[in-house]
Amino acid sequence: MSDTSYSQLEQRFNRLYQLQHLASVAHWDMAAMMPQGGSHARGEALAEVGVIMNELLSAPETGDLILSAEQDQADLSDWQQANLREMHRLWLNATGISSDLVKAKSLAGSRCEQAWRTMRADNNWQDFQPLLTDVIQLTIEESQQRADTGSLQPYDALLNLYEPGQSSAAIDKIFTQLTDFLPDFIQQVIDYQAGDELLRPAGPFLIEQQRELGLKLMQQVGFDFNHGRLDVSHHPFCGGVPEDVRITTRYSIEDFSESLMGVLHETGHAKYEQGLPQQWLNQPVGAARGMGIHESQSLFQEMQIARGKAFLQFAAPLIEQYLGGVYSQGKSGSKCWSADNLYRLNNRVKPDFIRVNADEVTYPMHVILRYEIEKLLINGELEVQHLPEIWDEKMQQYLGISTRGNYKDGCMQDIHWTDGSLGYFPTYTLGAMNAAQMYHAAEQAMPDLAQQISQGDFTRLNQWQKDKIWSQGSFYSIDELMIHATGETLNSEYYLNHLKHRFLP
Amino acid sequence: MSDTSYSQLEQRFNRLYQLQHLASVAHWDMAAMMPQGGSHARGEALAEVGVIMNELLSAPETGDLILSAEQDQADLSDWQQANLREMHRLWLNATGISSDLVKAKSLAGSRCEQAWRTMRADNNWQDFQPLLTDVIQLTIEESQQRADTGSLQPYDALLNLYEPGQSSAAIDKIFTQLTDFLPDFIQQVIDYQAGDELLRPAGPFLIEQQRELGLKLMQQVGFDFNHGRLDVSHHPFCGGVPEDVRITTRYSIEDFSESLMGVLHETGHAKYEQGLPQQWLNQPVGAARGMGIHESQSLFQEMQIARGKAFLQFAAPLIEQYLGGVYSQGKSGSKCWSADNLYRLNNRVKPDFIRVNADEVTYPMHVILRYEIEKLLINGELEVQHLPEIWDEKMQQYLGISTRGNYKDGCMQDIHWTDGSLGYFPTYTLGAMNAAQMYHAAEQAMPDLAQQISQGDFTRLNQWQKDKIWSQGSFYSIDELMIHATGETLNSEYYLNHLKHRFLP
Repeated sequence: MSDTSYSQLEQRFNRLYQLQHLASVAHWDMAAMMPQGGSHARGEALAEVGVIMNELLSAPETGDLILSAEQDQADLSDWQQANLREMHRLWLNATGISSDLVKAKSLAGSRCEQAWRTMRADNNWQDFQPLLTDVIQLTIEESQQRADTGSLQPYDALLNLYEPGQSSAAIDKIFTQLTDFLPDFIQQVIDYQAGDELLRPAGPFLIEQQRELGLKLMQQVGFDFNHGRLDVSHHPFCGGVPEDVRITTRYSIEDFSESLMGVLHETGHAKYEQGLPQQWLNQPVGAARGMGIHESQSLFQEMQIARGKAFLQFAAPLIEQYLGGVYSQGKSGSKCWSADNLYRLNNRVKPDFIRVNADEVTYPMHVILRYEIEKLLINGELEVQHLPEIWDEKMQQYLGISTRGNYKDGCMQDIHWTDGSLGYFPTYTLGAMNAAQMYHAAEQAMPDLAQQISQGDFTRLNQWQKDKIWSQGSFYSIDELMIHATGETLNSEYYLNHLKHRFLP
Repeated sequence: MSDTSYSQLEQRFNRLYQLQHLASVAHWDMAAMMPQGGSHARGEALAEVGVIMNELLSAPETGDLILSAEQDQADLSDWQQANLREMHRLWLNATGISSDLVKAKSLAGSRCEQAWRTMRADNNWQDFQPLLTDVIQLTIEESQQRADTGSLQPYDALLNLYEPGQSSAAIDKIFTQLTDFLPDFIQQVIDYQAGDELLRPAGPFLIEQQRELGLKLMQQVGFDFNHGRLDVSHHPFCGGVPEDVRITTRYSIEDFSESLMGVLHETGHAKYEQGLPQQWLNQPVGAARGMGIHESQSLFQEMQIARGKAFLQFAAPLIEQYLGGVYSQGKSGSKCWSADNLYRLNNRVKPDFIRVNADEVTYPMHVILRYEIEKLLINGELEVQHLPEIWDEKMQQYLGISTRGNYKDGCMQDIHWTDGSLGYFPTYTLGAMNAAQMYHAAEQAMPDLAQQISQGDFTRLNQWQKDKIWSQGSFYSIDELMIHATGETLNSEYYLNHLKHRFLP
């Protein structure tokens, strides 16, 4: 079958994969290694390879080959058929929007993002607003073009770029259960935690010691250092390629916890990438199954495991060993390194303005606020000029705090919208919910799971995740994958139970 | 002129440049950052982008556009014409060998290189010989195909890949002057140096201190850290892109000098890259002018400057400051850090088997030995099975040492021939000779040059090099560039005078 339409497609998508490999390495390097003066040239190189990849993917021959391969689909194996389905999806994503609009959006996006970097610091909504208006207008056009191509609602057409097969109707139902539950629950937790005695380990914590601790825990939970690295960047991320996953963190000498939990979060992403199906890595079906599943793996590692009691029982002595030396023992004593105290520190709930700093309980409210606003914007029910008001309104309703006049901690805090990436936010909370459901399923399969974790033994859990999730790549749809891993599609019960169990014992 | 043949070529070569950017970053990463397990995937990605670049460069349309642009050449500026000339040269290099032969050579090359890595260590010439025979046979075919395309002698056709416009007839004349002079001169220097008192600073020298010293001297001689970095790799090199030059070194805690001189050598390469014409970087005419000129810039920095008296007068106190602390002072005393002693240490002459360890005086003999053997191989006057004998013969003749039976320190010591890279060795010594001639010209232009150097002031010298060499890219031919920089084409007098002056004061 060396020259069937399908095999020609495999060659074409292999080429895309190899170009993506180089682009990913260059992206990582840009964030972790590159001197400032290299940025213009790097930008040009990445833009050009983006154009080349887009030409290759959206070429008419690609579409012709897909249609032709689909006619002979019966000759293909299950995985090949799934691969062809993913090829078709990627081809639709690439061709579902006119090239004029791509260019216009890219231009308006860079302009807005560039401006955001200074205007956010200056709390300058007035000058930012027209730039964002342009971006939103073009994103509305994009959503309409994509909706026509995919026979979807406009917002769903954007959502599907990140979460294939997902709909806002389904998300609405799930999120309603959260908005019904969380605001009261948050207050209960705050009241409950009010009496907690918190001992904050006092820094400074040497960066080299923090790094060593991070590496130690990465290794313990199963990061494969033969196929990956840990480095530093301003915004932590998981990048590189499945064969060589590059995660980054940033260190604060005053607070070790941000980096430690961040490293474990990115390690969750990394283990997913490292566990993808080896024989399909260079094909679309070998890739991770969307953002919500990807985030589920990072949050599984961070929220379900690392901030939990069992893990902290295992990790507390190590944390003390690496960080509790001469630098802080004198000031805070050794009680601060107890698993119980670290547990309380790592699960403290407090409504705050900034999503990325939010705790596990208030985080979904930040996401839902954005999700609701995104839908209004895309459906033309909200103009950008009224964004700050509705933001403030929802912050008060969901978290009881006001962002009136405080744009930089309000609707200007995130970078996502500046380049028109709407439809992405809900995947954070879908990921958190998937993770809770998966953890429950893993516990069903291994009743002694908490004991394994408290002993630092992740062998069986990793194997379970690999079998159920990682090695499946994009073979299944999201719903099918959830059924394969947990026996049912997303069910918010597990997440709500997790929150109750963790925060109101 | 937005759609002339010439402007279409500029777009096409811009695309090649951007792909080369990504490949270069990936190469650097592979050597300096990548975990072992990433190598297979990285190899695949680099091979694929190599194929893409070759398709783009050797496409029939590229040839058609070049011919068409050449007909309208009168409308082009000087630099555009030079750019077109370079495009034509690169196109000939890409199309001058059949794709079957490219594949066969690449396969035989990988096999031979792979085997070399273990067989060299085992001194196993017997099993290595048939693999090298295959490679040489295919390289002879390549040389003949390229000779037909370029109307050149076979060996010259290979040489021209690295040193455009150069001929073995011209090199023969130059190298004869060296073989007439050097063997006796080497003996004279050895006799002269026999009475030198050498104080070797005793290590260990902390790697971090060595690194700081290297960075300090890089900065002092004008490396632009906004457009480059220093890292570690097993084989030191200068890579990256002109906008972001990545140099590497390796450290020995017993001997700081290898890394220090290596760093300055690579800094010489780097400053050339950083000084290339900014407005032409993405075009062939903006690239460095061949290997011999590139090596001249590294050897200018290392041999003409860093190992010279003036530089060591400036650097000695810094070297002592960074390395002469508690780690060695006790053992060797502060006299070992004097400029005079460091000068003697850095210019010690001793015939040895290994080219890459050779001093400045014996190095050319290693190169000439290889050059002479390469010509014999390519012209069919020597069979691979007789290589060890002729190697031994020439080593005895030129350096007075024998490699009989010692293959690993004889004809198996270098990696170059394993993938059929013949024609490259002479550029090392051409570079050394260019460097001496350039330094002489710089001294003529700035009679106080030695004084500037002894004060660590490289501002005017760097400007001179930038004007004369770096900013010229590939605008001139090699001969023209030498005339532009020094007033004449390569003249071995300057090099011989340099050696006499440095080694027999």
